[in-house]
Amino acid sequence: MAEKKKVGILGASGYTGAELVRLLLRHPKVEITLLTADRRAGLAMGDVFPQFAPYDLPRLTSIDGVDWATAELDLIFCALPHGTTQTVIKDVLEKAPHLKIVDLSADFRLASPEAYAKWYGHEHHALELQKEAVYGLVEVYRRDIKKARLIANPGCYTSCALLPLIPLIKEKAIETDEIVVDAKSGMTGAGRSAKEEMLFSEVSEGFHAYGVGHHRHMSELDQEFSKAAGKEVVVSFTPHLLPMNRGILSTIYVRGRRGKTAEDLHALLAEHYAKEPFVHVLPFGKTPQTRHVRGSNMTFIGVAADRIPGRAIVISTLDNLTKGASGQAVQNMNLVLGFAETLGIDQPPMFP
Amino acid sequence: MAEKKKVGILGASGYTGAELVRLLLRHPKVEITLLTADRRAGLAMGDVFPQFAPYDLPRLTSIDGVDWATAELDLIFCALPHGTTQTVIKDVLEKAPHLKIVDLSADFRLASPEAYAKWYGHEHHALELQKEAVYGLVEVYRRDIKKARLIANPGCYTSCALLPLIPLIKEKAIETDEIVVDAKSGMTGAGRSAKEEMLFSEVSEGFHAYGVGHHRHMSELDQEFSKAAGKEVVVSFTPHLLPMNRGILSTIYVRGRRGKTAEDLHALLAEHYAKEPFVHVLPFGKTPQTRHVRGSNMTFIGVAADRIPGRAIVISTLDNLTKGASGQAVQNMNLVLGFAETLGIDQPPMFP
Amino acid sequence: MAEKKKVGILGASGYTGAELVRLLLRHPKVEITLLTADRRAGLAMGDVFPQFAPYDLPRLTSIDGVDWATAELDLIFCALPHGTTQTVIKDVLEKAPHLKIVDLSADFRLASPEAYAKWYGHEHHALELQKEAVYGLVEVYRRDIKKARLIANPGCYTSCALLPLIPLIKEKAIETDEIVVDAKSGMTGAGRSAKEEMLFSEVSEGFHAYGVGHHRHMSELDQEFSKAAGKEVVVSFTPHLLPMNRGILSTIYVRGRRGKTAEDLHALLAEHYAKEPFVHVLPFGKTPQTRHVRGSNMTFIGVAADRIPGRAIVISTLDNLTKGASGQAVQNMNLVLGFAETLGIDQPPMFP
Amino acid sequence: MAEKKKVGILGASGYTGAELVRLLLRHPKVEITLLTADRRAGLAMGDVFPQFAPYDLPRLTSIDGVDWATAELDLIFCALPHGTTQTVIKDVLEKAPHLKIVDLSADFRLASPEAYAKWYGHEHHALELQKEAVYGLVEVYRRDIKKARLIANPGCYTSCALLPLIPLIKEKAIETDEIVVDAKSGMTGAGRSAKEEMLFSEVSEGFHAYGVGHHRHMSELDQEFSKAAGKEVVVSFTPHLLPMNRGILSTIYVRGRRGKTAEDLHALLAEHYAKEPFVHVLPFGKTPQTRHVRGSNMTFIGVAADRIPGRAIVISTLDNLTKGASGQAVQNMNLVLGFAETLGIDQPPMFP
Repeated sequence: MAEKKKVGILGASGYTGAELVRLLLRHPKVEITLLTADRRAGLAMGDVFPQFAPYDLPRLTSIDGVDWATAELDLIFCALPHGTTQTVIKDVLEKAPHLKIVDLSADFRLASPEAYAKWYGHEHHALELQKEAVYGLVEVYRRDIKKARLIANPGCYTSCALLPLIPLIKEKAIETDEIVVDAKSGMTGAGRSAKEEMLFSEVSEGFHAYGVGHHRHMSELDQEFSKAAGKEVVVSFTPHLLPMNRGILSTIYVRGRRGKTAEDLHALLAEHYAKEPFVHVLPFGKTPQTRHVRGSNMTFIGVAADRIPGRAIVISTLDNLTKGASGQAVQNMNLVLGFAETLGIDQPPMFP
Repeated sequence: MAEKKKVGILGASGYTGAELVRLLLRHPKVEITLLTADRRAGLAMGDVFPQFAPYDLPRLTSIDGVDWATAELDLIFCALPHGTTQTVIKDVLEKAPHLKIVDLSADFRLASPEAYAKWYGHEHHALELQKEAVYGLVEVYRRDIKKARLIANPGCYTSCALLPLIPLIKEKAIETDEIVVDAKSGMTGAGRSAKEEMLFSEVSEGFHAYGVGHHRHMSELDQEFSKAAGKEVVVSFTPHLLPMNRGILSTIYVRGRRGKTAEDLHALLAEHYAKEPFVHVLPFGKTPQTRHVRGSNMTFIGVAADRIPGRAIVISTLDNLTKGASGQAVQNMNLVLGFAETLGIDQPPMFP
Repeated sequence: MAEKKKVGILGASGYTGAELVRLLLRHPKVEITLLTADRRAGLAMGDVFPQFAPYDLPRLTSIDGVDWATAELDLIFCALPHGTTQTVIKDVLEKAPHLKIVDLSADFRLASPEAYAKWYGHEHHALELQKEAVYGLVEVYRRDIKKARLIANPGCYTSCALLPLIPLIKEKAIETDEIVVDAKSGMTGAGRSAKEEMLFSEVSEGFHAYGVGHHRHMSELDQEFSKAAGKEVVVSFTPHLLPMNRGILSTIYVRGRRGKTAEDLHALLAEHYAKEPFVHVLPFGKTPQTRHVRGSNMTFIGVAADRIPGRAIVISTLDNLTKGASGQAVQNMNLVLGFAETLGIDQPPMFP
Repeated sequence: MAEKKKVGILGASGYTGAELVRLLLRHPKVEITLLTADRRAGLAMGDVFPQFAPYDLPRLTSIDGVDWATAELDLIFCALPHGTTQTVIKDVLEKAPHLKIVDLSADFRLASPEAYAKWYGHEHHALELQKEAVYGLVEVYRRDIKKARLIANPGCYTSCALLPLIPLIKEKAIETDEIVVDAKSGMTGAGRSAKEEMLFSEVSEGFHAYGVGHHRHMSELDQEFSKAAGKEVVVSFTPHLLPMNRGILSTIYVRGRRGKTAEDLHALLAEHYAKEPFVHVLPFGKTPQTRHVRGSNMTFIGVAADRIPGRAIVISTLDNLTKGASGQAVQNMNLVLGFAETLGIDQPPMFP
């Protein structure tokens, strides 16, 4: 048997880190040889995520303690907070320029320095790498990703909206000036930091919108929709928090262009995704549920006719930790390291 | 002390029945003297809802067993399934024509026989009463309700959309041809019948839309919006099910007319509802959460600017069992029986 | 109408503080004239608990800013963290010695200075007050409470175990050396501090025990059981956390003494509590559910026979925020201020 | 590559059926060639469990429609309701005597015809098979299972109690006359039938015991504990329902025999299970959480000292659908078909 590739995870004590470990532990062609978590350095992975106590995993270390030149890593996943990531990756690639990196933060998702500065309030600290980075939505950028060194793994809300809408926009099948994306996410999308508004008693048995009118995921949507349309596209987007752990569902209201009906939009999506392993288009009129993709790398898409003639309702769902983050990251890794695209991420969803 | 008015509840074994009992048990001016539940007739209320075991309540009886002429009731709440309600009420009012009725079903909500027949697939069985019934949304029809004999308590989804939109439509402040209402409801809105799709393991830890493009609540929306606008208004409306018990939240996407901004819409609503006891408009830019109205008769409304110029996002929330059903019904009773409007339904919300 | 009594709440930004506000807002004989929350001083109550935004309430202030001599308060509820409470109360009572205090912390629950020092690791800072304080479980100490100045409101786990067991122990109806109390609590019992282990994604969809073998509530159990038995009683007690907000349920395994059967134990409890407004004993063999006491001040108790001859299973439940904390505190206030015991806390439970 | 073994699932439309499909879809050495569901015959698996829509699976058929002689199956899993299973299996084995069967119902778990008749109220309909069946708890009966034709997969509550207690009882390390097992299960353990008491709104946000004093799982406990002890053992056992989907946790109160301390019991279990792939004993004093075994075939066991000298608290947890049902069933299949025991069931737990 060929030797396994060596991979590391920076920021292993968060939820996307744990999801990467879950997936990679049974990936047949890689082994985890590095796990970092600065504030938990020295602990075993089983101390911060008891589900991994029975498994043989490297102890958590701090990023500063890694000797990148001798670490013999083939690829690292970067699951660090937005903002700090760019300097870490810049530093790592200076010391280990041949390393492949899949970055799960938002730091390299925006291609335009101006857009980055506008949305994040400061200049990007690694402008050259920002230029180099490839946007890691495999179904759209598969070819570029295979050759990339630095991949910006897309956001969870963004992926859930891009997958159904990009083909419709590219084919000029829908009006681009009246798209409404009403998005709902499970709590794991908010991460693992201890904040009052994320306590169980604050968020269970209730529902609310947040960031209304100004959520940062909008910048990614703008970039990708505009690129697909060949002109500036700005959509209405409202995120909400669901009292559950995993899953994003986007209800998308669109109007067909030039007489395109809801059936036409459905046929277009069904054909476009017919051969994609991780996108499933439901029969016309049926709409998906978050629970039916839970724990898997699948995206389910449904299309139904609105009762207003000419309008359609497109609903898409994915697991924010898997296809919306770590599963997508492994999919990117598989491309970059030359493996079969589905390797290690083809588990069926877990319901109930 | 004046004698208490006597009230009955038909269909007391469902959730809206239980919510009526909860509210009426502490209402200072009424006493419950009749509870019916055909399939549970003979049982104590504490057998079907153990929380009421310590309270002194009449035993459940069947509707057929009631002698309406001698029952000495002042008012009944009708919490029976849609469809069967109309013949029951027709029969009751023939026997006891002076009785006041607050009906929580959909049977008398549509004023037009044609609309009823279209949405429900059959002729209405009590056309005269359909004509007589008053639509029981107090904030809109307070004056008519006071004089009514038969009140059609509005639907929960409908109330949540009408309260924020009716004033905006009446004032011609928004375009009426591009309103999108994305609505999310807790599970109690689906009632207490034993269906596989309502089992805990089917609906917890997940989220989905249903009835996409053809939900019956649309007929009520059409009727009330069109009446407010003085012309036909048809909106996009999509209901979703939340993995929680109580609460509806509607995210409503609108465009201001003739330069009206989101701030203008907010000011209009804030002024319109300034004196209403059960509608609270949040400061501009703040949006409400279902949990903060739980168990109360309050509706919370927030307005924020969309980033697309000229568009606004209006979010409203209420407890589907209280303001969306039984609390609204008691509010109607209070008007009809000449009590203070807030009597017995002024409990603050329960959070957490 | 007689003037209302003036009450204050120290520590109003936590869950027991919010529950006190919920109950007191509709209490007919008191008004809230003081709300403190040191870290949130200056905010409106509606800023920290949006459900109260529509209500007229004093702004949050810091404890240091209160002029106790001129505050004209009749009673304060103290909902501060354990440990800091004793010095605050000592200081307040020096400045306003005629004030009545209901303390919801654990600081004055243990009567013995030695027991306090053993369980909390330091000398009590207000030994005189510790001596003066009355343990505020109304069903056991009603007479003493009426005359008290300082009342130590019992813990939620403790109340749930004491109410079913104290009568059985006092009557020498059960063996005291093999009592097992397996207790399960909703998350609100853990308070509102931002800790990783209390995040939604950490505690939803899962269940676990904590503090196994050494939970501080045991000290209260020891004190009260031993007092009831007239000899030292030490029970097995294991607390668990439920993925829900409100409610404690204790499953208690006991053996009858001198031939006492489960039926005998049931009869004893049923008779003992026949006239108590807030304790309801279910028919023999039936056992209670947390949801059926939610939001109310009720305790439900059930007794069933174990299949092992001579053994019984006693199950009790209450809402940890109401009868387990703030409802019990208002019950104490009612006694101390000479009101009817059930005033303001007689709302029926809210289910679903 | 060797040809895959052909397996079938009788009763594929329930939760244990779905869990079997989830696990077997990625099992490298078997393929699913038969799925039955009498009331859903004719439907695709994706119609009853939409998560499987993207996968290539046989259409649901009725049991009567199967031609067992020509079906070319190597093994079937039987996930039918208790009671009907025994006649079905008897019939199948008459037609296809070389078939291996793993039965997930309770029908063949009790070895004694008398015990069966007592607990189930009727004579067993397949007494010969009852005699032949092997109890399928691999960690206890591995050797017998390898040679078996008919395996009675253990109950979920039972497995969770047997795994920690059997070694302690066999080694005579604990007193057998005062064992208390307080067990809590997620809702999926109750199956998928549409019953009012299993509706989301009935069971969310609440907790309760059921079957107090007379739950059928007790018969399995009695059989296995008595066998291990070499004398009759009857334990106190109380099951409860948790407002969550997956997971059982048992809190077990025991007393060490002949001076055995909690540490001794821990050491005994840790050594006993040191090499078992699916049982993990935590460090002494640490106790497990259901969420950390979710979706996996793992059992986590913790032991802590009670504060009462000589007593210990043992806590065990497993996923009721995996190690408590379908994962255990695949583990049995692996043994019977000669595969590596962990094949297809070695996925790490999924948390959050």
